[in-house]
Amino acid sequence: MPAAPTIVRIGDVATEAGAVITDAAIAYSSWGRLHTAGDGSTNVILVEHALTGDSDARSWWGDEIIGPGKPLDTDRFCVICTNVLGGCAGSTGPSSPHPDGRAFGSRFPAISIRDQVQAEKQFLDVLGIKQVAAVMGGSMGGARTLEWTLLYPDSVGAALVMAVSARASAWQIGIQTAQIHAVTRDPDWLDGDYHGTGSFPRAGLSDARKIAHLTYRGELEMDERFGAKPQEGEHPLGPVRRDDQRFAVESYLDYQADKLVMRFDAGSYVTLTEALNRHDIGRGRGGLNKALGSSTVPTMVAGVDTDILYPYHQQEHLARNLGALIGMAKISSPCGHDAFLTETRQVSNILGRFLRESGLAQRPFATG
Amino acid sequence: MPAAPTIVRIGDVATEAGAVITDAAIAYSSWGRLHTAGDGSTNVILVEHALTGDSDARSWWGDEIIGPGKPLDTDRFCVICTNVLGGCAGSTGPSSPHPDGRAFGSRFPAISIRDQVQAEKQFLDVLGIKQVAAVMGGSMGGARTLEWTLLYPDSVGAALVMAVSARASAWQIGIQTAQIHAVTRDPDWLDGDYHGTGSFPRAGLSDARKIAHLTYRGELEMDERFGAKPQEGEHPLGPVRRDDQRFAVESYLDYQADKLVMRFDAGSYVTLTEALNRHDIGRGRGGLNKALGSSTVPTMVAGVDTDILYPYHQQEHLARNLGALIGMAKISSPCGHDAFLTETRQVSNILGRFLRESGLAQRPFATG
Repeated sequence: MPAAPTIVRIGDVATEAGAVITDAAIAYSSWGRLHTAGDGSTNVILVEHALTGDSDARSWWGDEIIGPGKPLDTDRFCVICTNVLGGCAGSTGPSSPHPDGRAFGSRFPAISIRDQVQAEKQFLDVLGIKQVAAVMGGSMGGARTLEWTLLYPDSVGAALVMAVSARASAWQIGIQTAQIHAVTRDPDWLDGDYHGTGSFPRAGLSDARKIAHLTYRGELEMDERFGAKPQEGEHPLGPVRRDDQRFAVESYLDYQADKLVMRFDAGSYVTLTEALNRHDIGRGRGGLNKALGSSTVPTMVAGVDTDILYPYHQQEHLARNLGALIGMAKISSPCGHDAFLTETRQVSNILGRFLRESGLAQRPFATG
Repeated sequence: MPAAPTIVRIGDVATEAGAVITDAAIAYSSWGRLHTAGDGSTNVILVEHALTGDSDARSWWGDEIIGPGKPLDTDRFCVICTNVLGGCAGSTGPSSPHPDGRAFGSRFPAISIRDQVQAEKQFLDVLGIKQVAAVMGGSMGGARTLEWTLLYPDSVGAALVMAVSARASAWQIGIQTAQIHAVTRDPDWLDGDYHGTGSFPRAGLSDARKIAHLTYRGELEMDERFGAKPQEGEHPLGPVRRDDQRFAVESYLDYQADKLVMRFDAGSYVTLTEALNRHDIGRGRGGLNKALGSSTVPTMVAGVDTDILYPYHQQEHLARNLGALIGMAKISSPCGHDAFLTETRQVSNILGRFLRESGLAQRPFATG
């Protein structure tokens, strides 16, 4: 297990909207040994993380998913996870040094999901990997996975797309933009150029994360845990409202937000959230259903029954229209969107099924 | 139809949490003539508005609901709608003058749904109305209606409770508190004492409303209307993200927020949202189900199939446990929570059924 990600320079990235990110880098972690066959095919499984994830997939998806003898069996597969372009865990993003030495900050352009995949393609090219056995991911990772199958179908053997839609829905754009505003309205945002100033839009990023978290979790599960209970030792029903007298769920959300603020750059949060706003696999391809129908990569779709951010009907839409669907799976969970991360047993079963139905389970990979 | 609400002084209101609002006022509008029988019963239907509503129920619920020959027939009933305590449309709230002449501002205490009902009881006492034929409302109006049936069962002939829960869920507290923070984090909030300073936390109230609106509307309906379309004349896919280059749904949400900011006080928004956080009919009554079971007022419950703010299972919970349930109705709509306001035909049918099943339709009221 890698202690720190490896950084690969991938050259300039030209964005879909016409900007250029000079001398970009992609950070990655990997588990298992790379095996390349004579025809250029490999045993690589490219794992795509969600909005605030990073390349350490074993940490955010769990040892039960990735490892020797696990569903993503590192005795057979070489699992590679990249940090997304625009992120803040090694890959180039707003907090990275610009060629002039200061941080990119507001000079980091708006990027799309396609730009992220473009950067990952350049990354695989540098590594000399011409085709991966599979790409997979959930949420923003699912969006990248879908774009991989349409931008570079010859480079992808199979795909597993989880808890995402074919494009951002109006509701998603609305709630995501609310998060962007929560950050950019913070006086410490400094128009995106707070890096190196000692300022950080902590309150804004915290509020954004709380809104996001409420879209990631199921209301039934949250209510069972917290209900309307007061936080221990606090009195939220006093004669005046006070921020320090909280309901238990407020304390929980504060904790979730504090954890993110400690580890994540606000500029990356805005950049990646904006990339989700721009997610639209139909753009320039004759619309959503034509784009989906043109897909030639064997693809499996999974979703969560209680997901309010990417409701299950959006995965049904994908499955109805994808050109090379190999199956569909529903995760049943009170946990909402995050179930693709938390329902380890169901996800393991889905991975097993995906590997069998894509034929990868039957391939004689061995890295040992 | 009243041009402006009538203001009634109701004396001091002592809150559940131990504060006192001195010399409070309640504003109300009414349609139809009051009829009081010898036993003190009346033909009054008390309509309770939602968070940002006011006493002009014909404006927010529509002429198709209230009027001569309409479901709430003003030839038979005297329909009274009060502006809620803590509001900003005539009743005492944070923007009202304190006895010292300046606005209450931060001196307005935290209030609960029960405090709001307490104030309405004092209001009816001043008017000499000992019993109303029915109380009804949706969302925060539904919460007040429920509390009426438990605080003053002898004063209420029947109740229609729509699109609400027995108490705030953890998710509701979370998303409501996110709205409170959006307002109170605005530098122009001035700790709640911006009234009379020329300051107004416009950006904060705007962001709060956008978050709220996304919980009020159905994602299917919003997506059908706006999808990922750009706002006409704007280019949200440019090389950098700009607040003035919007998706159509952003423009729609900006419009909704601008409308609210023009007409609503930010202090009232915080106060009423906090009252929703404190909504819990089980408090001090042995828990939710015991409280519901103790209800003796014939009550009908209605909900919306696509409501994510007050999911339909919450209305099923009410119906399962209410001591004197007279029926349950589901509004089928792509519009989410707001359907109790927008699905006029279904709401009219529900009102007709409520009046019949409560026996009010058969009573010989005539105000003519």
